[in-house]
Amino acid sequence: MASSVSPHPEEPTKWASRRTPERGPAPLSHSLPLRVYYEDTDAAGMVYHANYLKFAERGRSEMLRSLGFPHRKLAAEEGVGFAVRRCSIEYLAPAWLEDALVVDTTLVELGAATLNLRQQIRRAGELLADLDVLVACIGRDGRPRRVPGALRAALASAGPLGPRAP
Amino acid sequence: MASSVSPHPEEPTKWASRRTPERGPAPLSHSLPLRVYYEDTDAAGMVYHANYLKFAERGRSEMLRSLGFPHRKLAAEEGVGFAVRRCSIEYLAPAWLEDALVVDTTLVELGAATLNLRQQIRRAGELLADLDVLVACIGRDGRPRRVPGALRAALASAGPLGPRAP
Amino acid sequence: MASSVSPHPEEPTKWASRRTPERGPAPLSHSLPLRVYYEDTDAAGMVYHANYLKFAERGRSEMLRSLGFPHRKLAAEEGVGFAVRRCSIEYLAPAWLEDALVVDTTLVELGAATLNLRQQIRRAGELLADLDVLVACIGRDGRPRRVPGALRAALASAGPLGPRAP
Amino acid sequence: MASSVSPHPEEPTKWASRRTPERGPAPLSHSLPLRVYYEDTDAAGMVYHANYLKFAERGRSEMLRSLGFPHRKLAAEEGVGFAVRRCSIEYLAPAWLEDALVVDTTLVELGAATLNLRQQIRRAGELLADLDVLVACIGRDGRPRRVPGALRAALASAGPLGPRAP
Repeated sequence: MASSVSPHPEEPTKWASRRTPERGPAPLSHSLPLRVYYEDTDAAGMVYHANYLKFAERGRSEMLRSLGFPHRKLAAEEGVGFAVRRCSIEYLAPAWLEDALVVDTTLVELGAATLNLRQQIRRAGELLADLDVLVACIGRDGRPRRVPGALRAALASAGPLGPRAP
Repeated sequence: MASSVSPHPEEPTKWASRRTPERGPAPLSHSLPLRVYYEDTDAAGMVYHANYLKFAERGRSEMLRSLGFPHRKLAAEEGVGFAVRRCSIEYLAPAWLEDALVVDTTLVELGAATLNLRQQIRRAGELLADLDVLVACIGRDGRPRRVPGALRAALASAGPLGPRAP
Repeated sequence: MASSVSPHPEEPTKWASRRTPERGPAPLSHSLPLRVYYEDTDAAGMVYHANYLKFAERGRSEMLRSLGFPHRKLAAEEGVGFAVRRCSIEYLAPAWLEDALVVDTTLVELGAATLNLRQQIRRAGELLADLDVLVACIGRDGRPRRVPGALRAALASAGPLGPRAP
Repeated sequence: MASSVSPHPEEPTKWASRRTPERGPAPLSHSLPLRVYYEDTDAAGMVYHANYLKFAERGRSEMLRSLGFPHRKLAAEEGVGFAVRRCSIEYLAPAWLEDALVVDTTLVELGAATLNLRQQIRRAGELLADLDVLVACIGRDGRPRRVPGALRAALASAGPLGPRAP
């Protein structure tokens, strides 16, 4: 990824520039819609802060599924899984019971044994939570493993996936 | 719903009698598809037993939404909510990571201030968990309240709702 | 256990009678204190109904630990674990954020491959939730297994365990 | 706290400077022991990554309780609560079922309306997760509020709290 690309691409103009042919293919991205249920909320009436990480994990899992690599297949055929190594999350506005949210996931960097993802959780376009997540590919022994070649190829060429964010 | 269709094949005789024309219309039922994520599983590799109650609650919430009565509307316009009073659950087979499940919800009895629901969680038609749930309608003070008339009318006349179970 | 013993032993007098020598040893029981945190509550301000099952599971795990049989030891040395087969729960009063609760667990029946437990969750002596739980002993293949002899002996002779309920 | 005691041995030089007499009293710190239960784990066998944020929240809540300011008191008497604004977490090693963990919480900076906390989750002294958390004091309307004076005084003068980490 070109070093001049903003790692915080919420601005539409910056996004647009990423998709010009001069900059290479559009980055892999995926959108997952979800609903807030009682289980997600807490006594403050809003979504409990740790549960945004659950929403983000659903987004990553569905992105992999969209590419044809659900976790069970990766484990059975490649002997690998993904573990979160680092996560930074900024909470900008609360989500409430029954809100319709969208988890947008973008691949920021594909390393030899890691994926760096930006994930943004929105309600009707409003950004509620902004995450920077580093996941590592690990083997059954928990040690780092290279991202399998077939998945790597799919990640590198996929472009936008899934339903579009509103 | 055709009277010959039995959405609860494991107990055909018991349920079939409810659907004879002499006994009135088909009961309200609703089906919610959902996916199992890592957050739902535990170290035994399967869905953690308490999380089936979360799945069932999603099913009840979506049934109410299908009828036009999401929780926030019920709270704002009628001043009521629902609280679980009793729940019995039988676990027949485990669900696993990434399973595609369906929560089938059927209204068994509509009381003055309660709903008695049967909820069944299936994977590809196989029954995994079978719940009998009694929810009470309560006011903002936590005391029992009559089920609001508009919701009562919708519950009584709805018949099958939502996507069909596979 | 004598057939005349009440399966709903919340009454102190019935409890007392159980411990007379004529009635055999006191049943195994265990009390676990715990605190309600934000993660346990929902937007209704109270503990989310499914989370009482988590509290009960903590109580069962600590009972086993008190007997010298934590899950990891049972898995490593005996190749067995426990899975919930049935659970009935009655919700009598809500628990709130920061409440100090106690989970009382009593062994009601020790079967060949099952434990039937009664679990009661209280706040300052007030009964909030009352559970009847059947757990099955299973092997690594998920099939029923006899409760290991050492654990069976411990369960049969233990009597009251852990801190006493208030 | 004796200046030679380093509750954060992995970065002694960085933290030690904070405790020199020239820099004022030892920072507020608190240790909460907890146990890993099935509910905390996932199908990878380890603690689900989002649940470390729950553990950290328990630590913050218990720190406030140790100071005499549980959430319900803060809400009732001061009309304020705390909301997480930002959180960064690094996962260094997995925690497993039944592990005995300790959540160490240190106040890094006390702002006008915010607390910046460092939280470290350890097992037998080994650092498993390292969090940097910014929480904001908010009023009932969700808007920023100054940290109440009594809590501010307690935070500024408390020093180490709670049971010591092993």
